[in-house]
Amino acid sequence: MNSEFDFIDHIKSKYDLSKIGDDCAVIPKDKKHDFVITTDLLVEDIDFRRSWMIPKFLGHKSLAVSLSDIAAMGGKPKFAMLSVGIPEDIWKTNFLEEFYSGWHKLAKKFKVELIGGDVSKTPDKIVIDSIVFGEVTRNKAVMRSTANVGDQIFVTGKLGGAALGLKYLEEKTEGFDSLKKLQLKPNPRIYEGQFLSKIATSMIDISDGLSSDLLHICRASEVGAKLFFDKIPTYLNEFPQNLSSKIQTSNYIFDGGEDFELLFTVNSKNILDKKLTNFHHIGELTQNTGNIELIRDSKSTVLLPKGYQHF
Amino acid sequence: MNSEFDFIDHIKSKYDLSKIGDDCAVIPKDKKHDFVITTDLLVEDIDFRRSWMIPKFLGHKSLAVSLSDIAAMGGKPKFAMLSVGIPEDIWKTNFLEEFYSGWHKLAKKFKVELIGGDVSKTPDKIVIDSIVFGEVTRNKAVMRSTANVGDQIFVTGKLGGAALGLKYLEEKTEGFDSLKKLQLKPNPRIYEGQFLSKIATSMIDISDGLSSDLLHICRASEVGAKLFFDKIPTYLNEFPQNLSSKIQTSNYIFDGGEDFELLFTVNSKNILDKKLTNFHHIGELTQNTGNIELIRDSKSTVLLPKGYQHF
Repeated sequence: MNSEFDFIDHIKSKYDLSKIGDDCAVIPKDKKHDFVITTDLLVEDIDFRRSWMIPKFLGHKSLAVSLSDIAAMGGKPKFAMLSVGIPEDIWKTNFLEEFYSGWHKLAKKFKVELIGGDVSKTPDKIVIDSIVFGEVTRNKAVMRSTANVGDQIFVTGKLGGAALGLKYLEEKTEGFDSLKKLQLKPNPRIYEGQFLSKIATSMIDISDGLSSDLLHICRASEVGAKLFFDKIPTYLNEFPQNLSSKIQTSNYIFDGGEDFELLFTVNSKNILDKKLTNFHHIGELTQNTGNIELIRDSKSTVLLPKGYQHF
Repeated sequence: MNSEFDFIDHIKSKYDLSKIGDDCAVIPKDKKHDFVITTDLLVEDIDFRRSWMIPKFLGHKSLAVSLSDIAAMGGKPKFAMLSVGIPEDIWKTNFLEEFYSGWHKLAKKFKVELIGGDVSKTPDKIVIDSIVFGEVTRNKAVMRSTANVGDQIFVTGKLGGAALGLKYLEEKTEGFDSLKKLQLKPNPRIYEGQFLSKIATSMIDISDGLSSDLLHICRASEVGAKLFFDKIPTYLNEFPQNLSSKIQTSNYIFDGGEDFELLFTVNSKNILDKKLTNFHHIGELTQNTGNIELIRDSKSTVLLPKGYQHF
């Protein structure tokens, strides 16, 4: 098995699991609505380190990553559950109190109610599983699999900042607080997702990285893509000199992940729709199934998926 | 904070979280149904050890513990999600393949569909979060908080076996396979739960231990309880000689946990109902709020909650 994505594909096919493979699972609720549901595991020393993690922000981020999945389906978040595993030494601090306070501040903003969870001891690492339920109009959840050749590709905001913030946190570099905050306290695009659900032909959140997440859309929709480098909004001007070579900045912009912006496609006849004026038009879908072409300085290269993967 | 139960009470009160505090959260689905939803975290070296864990059985148990929560609400399980965190060395084995095969065998039995999840790397320990959604008739989920003084207490099966099985697994004692299986591959009482939902005034699954789980009902319903030792079904005859003192066997029967039998109460006018003939009548609810009295050899003692707690 090459990666966790291959494993998920394998399980999906082996057990005929049709609801797996998007940002959220969609299950029928009532005559007018579906539920969209997601779960995200956050593990100490994989997703964050105790040395730079701030408990309140970790609470915020635990909810934000799942809200971002709800946003990517065009959903309205409603309920959440939290499973939290912590070692004995953390139990004795005010970690959980702070963690829940950060969680609730964001929950209140989006009117999400905590309805359950689990609290467990772990031998030594903090682990959090965040589960969020949202609602969408029946059969109107925006999937990854419904884009078409010729659709135009958009993104809701600038890329590469969270990955750059992570680099500064890991290196314990002073300053760069705005970039660090993008990593520590991301902003889920809930309102944008609901708004875009009326026009997007497909949508995903950028959690692994643009290169990998766009490929998820391409594979699910059986299309290819062409991206125009100059049109991609980035934190390039905030990149330090020693990182400014083409290859290194590309890593952050295309493969950095955790931007939690929404990547979406629109039928080309709608690209002048005023709904889209706040977003960035970065490319288009092609017939070159499963391949992403990058146009930069008038040259075309193949963009390989190098976004975050665990295995 | 004394225990995780105190912490959950604290969070519930601080943020006014009315849906927290039962085996499952209940949320409205449609005109005729509610959803009941639960999440359970299983952590290596807390809930199981790699030395005696069998991947297929761990898959089974991950689902079984959550199904048991659905059973305790009288629910019919429908959908599930799984977040699995594993270290690199386990990724390279057939652990996940075996784990999912055990999970699916049980899922198929109860017609549960896997609709999503997460796969993550961890630094060194296996961690699993199991989420299950079930359905109940609108406003008919069986709660912990709805029992009354005078109701009669029942349990669906024998207690103490899973804890005794754990002892043999931990001590690497040969044999005792049927007891070890109670620990490794518990049987969730789904059909019993649905059946009992028509007659039970309250219900909980015995996951922490009879003493603690009965106290959860007593506190939620603001009642007390009286138990008759001779009426409690146990694995006493399978207990080894050196454990057979009163105190030690009590630990297993009252505080062992993980029996995953259902503990429920019934209005005393219904105790001759033929629905109850397969179950064990072990006591009754009293006015002595928050206290459990144990009658053994004609003597009365107070039964303190000594079931499993993490902190």
